[in-house]
Amino acid sequence: MKFDELLMIPGPVQVHSRILNAMAKPLIGHRTPEFSEIMKRCTEGLKELFGTKDDVYIITGSGTAGIEAAISTFSSVKKITCIDNGKFGDRLCRIASRYTEVDELRFEWGNSIELEAVEKSLEEGSEAIAFVHNETSTGILNPAEEIGKLAKKHSALVIMDGITSVGGDEVKMDEWGIDVAIVGSQKCLGIPPGLAAVAVRERAWEFYNKKAPFYLDLSAYKKKLKDWQTPYTPAIPLFVALDEAIKMIKEEGLEKRIERHRTFSKAVREWAINAGLELFPELNEYSRYSNTVTAIKMPPEITDSELRGTLKREYGVTISGGQEHLKGRIFRIGTMGNIGKREILSTLAAIEDILTRKGAAMPALNVAMNVLKDL
Amino acid sequence: MKFDELLMIPGPVQVHSRILNAMAKPLIGHRTPEFSEIMKRCTEGLKELFGTKDDVYIITGSGTAGIEAAISTFSSVKKITCIDNGKFGDRLCRIASRYTEVDELRFEWGNSIELEAVEKSLEEGSEAIAFVHNETSTGILNPAEEIGKLAKKHSALVIMDGITSVGGDEVKMDEWGIDVAIVGSQKCLGIPPGLAAVAVRERAWEFYNKKAPFYLDLSAYKKKLKDWQTPYTPAIPLFVALDEAIKMIKEEGLEKRIERHRTFSKAVREWAINAGLELFPELNEYSRYSNTVTAIKMPPEITDSELRGTLKREYGVTISGGQEHLKGRIFRIGTMGNIGKREILSTLAAIEDILTRKGAAMPALNVAMNVLKDL
Repeated sequence: MKFDELLMIPGPVQVHSRILNAMAKPLIGHRTPEFSEIMKRCTEGLKELFGTKDDVYIITGSGTAGIEAAISTFSSVKKITCIDNGKFGDRLCRIASRYTEVDELRFEWGNSIELEAVEKSLEEGSEAIAFVHNETSTGILNPAEEIGKLAKKHSALVIMDGITSVGGDEVKMDEWGIDVAIVGSQKCLGIPPGLAAVAVRERAWEFYNKKAPFYLDLSAYKKKLKDWQTPYTPAIPLFVALDEAIKMIKEEGLEKRIERHRTFSKAVREWAINAGLELFPELNEYSRYSNTVTAIKMPPEITDSELRGTLKREYGVTISGGQEHLKGRIFRIGTMGNIGKREILSTLAAIEDILTRKGAAMPALNVAMNVLKDL
Repeated sequence: MKFDELLMIPGPVQVHSRILNAMAKPLIGHRTPEFSEIMKRCTEGLKELFGTKDDVYIITGSGTAGIEAAISTFSSVKKITCIDNGKFGDRLCRIASRYTEVDELRFEWGNSIELEAVEKSLEEGSEAIAFVHNETSTGILNPAEEIGKLAKKHSALVIMDGITSVGGDEVKMDEWGIDVAIVGSQKCLGIPPGLAAVAVRERAWEFYNKKAPFYLDLSAYKKKLKDWQTPYTPAIPLFVALDEAIKMIKEEGLEKRIERHRTFSKAVREWAINAGLELFPELNEYSRYSNTVTAIKMPPEITDSELRGTLKREYGVTISGGQEHLKGRIFRIGTMGNIGKREILSTLAAIEDILTRKGAAMPALNVAMNVLKDL
C-alpha cells in the first residue's frame, strides 16, 4: 500500500486539506463580481505579506514568470547589478541579460554576498539591483534591508526575488526600500504552484520598459487591477486556493507565522549541529541562515540516493538534494507553509534513523523538541 | 440559497466532478518519476488531439502565454501575416508585432477571411502566417486546411491559435501543414484555466528566434521534455487534472467527442434560427460556423443585461455577451468540454423562456431536441 507522502522540500510544499478542498469547488467565471471579490481579498492580503501599501499583481505562471515580469517591465535602466550566490541568483542574471546590460556579481554558492561589491557596482553607473532574498539552493538569507539602504543612497531601483521568503519570513518593502518583489504560490503561502505575485511600489514605474513581453508586461495587470481583474484568463482554482491560504494566514497571524517558520528552521539547524552534521552556508556579518530551508552537508558515510531514497521509500518523506554542482554534496529540508511540529519532528526522526544506521549522525531529536517546546 | 452555477461560455468551461476531484489530491513533487508519468500521458494524449506526431510543450500560464511562446520562439522571419477577423486575431497581431514585422490582414469582426488576401501577402514577401482557427469572439471557424495549403506553396511557417478548437473539433496539424498550434486548458479539454500547450512540428525550429522571453522560450521546454519534465515549476494540480481529462477523452473517443461538439453547436444554431433569431457570422465559401461556440444577434426587444442578468439570476446559467464593439449586439453560447444534452437543453430552455416573455423569440426547443436525438 502507498501511504500519503510528506513534502519537506523548499517548494512545492505540502498543501493543507482546506486548500486542496477549496480547489475542488465548482468553477466560477472570472469576469464576474464573485471572482473580483476573490481578487480583492488576495491582493490586499498579499500587500500585507510584502509589507507594502502599493499594488500587487498576480500572474498565472511559475515564480520564474513572476521574476521575468518584474525584470522585463522595469528594465529601463542603463545597467543592472545582479547578485548571484546561488542557483536562483544565477537565473536572475540570465533573465536580466535579455533586457539590459548586467553587472553580474558572482559569489561562490553557499557564500554570503559582499555589500562592498554591490556599492562599487552602483558607483560605477549601475542604476538597479536584482537579488534573491532567500536563496533556497544554499540556505542563505541575503541582507535585503542593507541592500535597500545602499540602493537608496544611489537612487537605484531594487528588484527582490522574495519567492521563498514572503509569507514565511519578514519582508518590509516600504520600510526597506525594495521597489519590486516577487513571491511564488507554492512556497510559504502554502498553495500549489501556478501563481506568482509581483508587488510594485509606485516609484518603480519610472523605470517602465514598454518592450516587456506581452503576457508579462505588468502595465496590463495594473490597468485591470482597478476592476479587481486580470488581463488574461487566470488559473481560477489557484486563486480560490490563494484566497483560502490568505484566510489561514490571517487566522494564524503574520507575526506568529513568521515566528513559527523561524522556530522550525532553528529546530532543524540545532538538531543538525547536535547530530554531528555541518550546515552548508558560510555566513558573514550581514547574512543569516534561511528561515524557510536548511542546507546541510552530506556526511561522507552515506550517499545522496541512500539518504533521500530510503527516506522516501521507508517513510514517504521527500527532502531535496543539492542542485547543479552541489548535487550529492548537500541535502536540504524545507520548512515552509502550513505544517506543524509533527511534520518537523517526524522528518528529523526519519532522517536521524537512516543516518545513525550508517554511523553518519548521533541522536539529537531532544534538541529539536526543546527548540519547538514553546510553539 | 445559491445553487451551483452552470458555465456555458466559450471558456472557462464547466468542469466535471472527476476533474475537480483530481485537483484535490495531495500534492506530489514535480521532480519525481510520478510526475514524469503524468507528463508523458498528458503529452502523448495531446499529440493525438493536435493531430501531430511531433512535440507538445505544456506551459503554466493562460492561452495568451501559449500564443506568445509560439510566436516569440518562432519569429525568426522577415515578415509575418497576421489574420484578424475577431478579438483573438487582433491579439495575435499585437503579440507578433513585438517580435517581427507584421502584415495585418483585417476583416470586419464577424466576417470570413479572404484567402486571396493571404496569398497576396505571401507573394509580397511574408514568410509566416498566424491565424485563429476558431474565433470565439464571433463564432467563426476559419479555414485552417486551406491556409495550410497556401503556406505550403510558399514554404511559409504556419502558427495556429487552436485554443478553442483542439479537443473539441477536428485538428490535423501534420495533414494540414500547420507547423505550430496552441490549445488552452479551459476550453474543449474541460479543465480549469492555467495551462496552455503548444504543439510544434520539427520544421518550425528552422524559424527559431533565440531572443524569445526566458519563460516562454520553447527550446527550454523541448530540452526538458526528453525527461518528461518542465523547465520551471509546473502547476501540478492542473497537470493532474489534464491527465484525468485526457483519460476521459480516451474513454469517449476523439471522433465521438468531435461529433458531440458538432451536434451540440448545430442544435444551438437550429434552435436559434427556428426561434426567429439571427446568427452573427457572415460566411463565405471557405468559412464555417464554429463547432464550439455560437454567436447570436441580440434581438431588439431585449438588452444584454436583461437577457444575461435574468439568465444568471433565475437559472444560474452564465453565457457570454459580445466583446469590445460587439458588446450588447450579440450573445454567445459556449458548448465545449465535458457536458451533455442536459446542459444544452436546459440552457436553451432558459434562454427561450426569457426571450419569449419579451416577445423576442418563438418556442423552438423541439428543433434542438430533434438535432440531439441520436446522441
